[in-house]
Amino acid sequence: MKYSKIPEVTIMRLSAYSRVLNEALDRGEKIISSKGIAMLTGVSPDQVRKDLAYFGEFGVRGIGYNIEELKYNISKIIGTDRNWNVAIAGLGHLGGSLVSYPGFLTRGFKMAGIFDVKNIGEKYGDLKVEHIDNFEKVAKEVGFDLGIIVVPREGAQGVADVMVKSGIKAILNFAPVMIDVPEGVELKNVDLSMFLEILSYYMSLKM
Amino acid sequence: MKYSKIPEVTIMRLSAYSRVLNEALDRGEKIISSKGIAMLTGVSPDQVRKDLAYFGEFGVRGIGYNIEELKYNISKIIGTDRNWNVAIAGLGHLGGSLVSYPGFLTRGFKMAGIFDVKNIGEKYGDLKVEHIDNFEKVAKEVGFDLGIIVVPREGAQGVADVMVKSGIKAILNFAPVMIDVPEGVELKNVDLSMFLEILSYYMSLKM
Repeated sequence: MKYSKIPEVTIMRLSAYSRVLNEALDRGEKIISSKGIAMLTGVSPDQVRKDLAYFGEFGVRGIGYNIEELKYNISKIIGTDRNWNVAIAGLGHLGGSLVSYPGFLTRGFKMAGIFDVKNIGEKYGDLKVEHIDNFEKVAKEVGFDLGIIVVPREGAQGVADVMVKSGIKAILNFAPVMIDVPEGVELKNVDLSMFLEILSYYMSLKM
Repeated sequence: MKYSKIPEVTIMRLSAYSRVLNEALDRGEKIISSKGIAMLTGVSPDQVRKDLAYFGEFGVRGIGYNIEELKYNISKIIGTDRNWNVAIAGLGHLGGSLVSYPGFLTRGFKMAGIFDVKNIGEKYGDLKVEHIDNFEKVAKEVGFDLGIIVVPREGAQGVADVMVKSGIKAILNFAPVMIDVPEGVELKNVDLSMFLEILSYYMSLKM
């Protein structure tokens, strides 16, 4: 299924809807209304309907959405209907927490390689920490789809370069520095302060 | 300075612009063009100009923006022109990494209380881990503005309730469960899988 390019902010909402659908399934529910999705995600019902209408008619007016079907359609849109091999570089505080982040595997993102310059050979579940110098070699054996960079800022560009050289087409960068990747490689920079800033914005509005 | 409500996605971009401005200042630069901001954030130049025009005319056509002034104006908008006291509950992998997340303090978010049900008394910098049962008491002494919830899902609603009771008006929730807060309290749910899903979306588009 191919779609025209959808704004990132819509993808983020679809991702949230999808989590709510999983929870509803866990509770044994079969049908959900746009109002129900709205309430559980904090998005307005109108926005929910608008987002879902984007991709054709999933719902039945007055009844709601078949949860299984909606979940399947969203997963096809956001690409979580398949598994992705993830390589992570950097095992500081944040890196260590990402390696064992429970949400990744359930969403189809499998940690397939972990790299650092120290603690080589240390085990995380079934994986051993590999030296970053072996990235290309391990990448050839395992095949990585996505890379996560959590190294200090000085090392980030070098790690990005080796990830790109190894064929990785999408990188999530937590290092607090802008990195360059060639055309055709998707890059998403994440700074967790951003979320606190959204809150401080709302709080400032009230002052 | 008061502004009408700005979409969250714009706030997220302003937050990214602001980081780029800090880096430019560190490099000793004084003026930046919208094209320069665009290049460094991956946002289109048109979007940058549109976002900044939202708040009045900061720039001088053909010359660019005074970095100090632009940074100051953005910080007033997103509320990082002041300091916020942050309380965090939950010191698992992710919680531990957030306590020492380097970006928070530089953006005006000061860790002012850390809470858990174990490792009570353990030190993180100047702070000692307090028992979550003492949250209200400590909140009275310290005064918290924002709360971060990183406890397991079963405990999240209880922690949110005690945060709200203690006067916290904005909560960032990393627990993988929807929590309820009363009207007037800002809540932002964060699931880090979301970022990988944005990348898997882009990769799926190419297949």
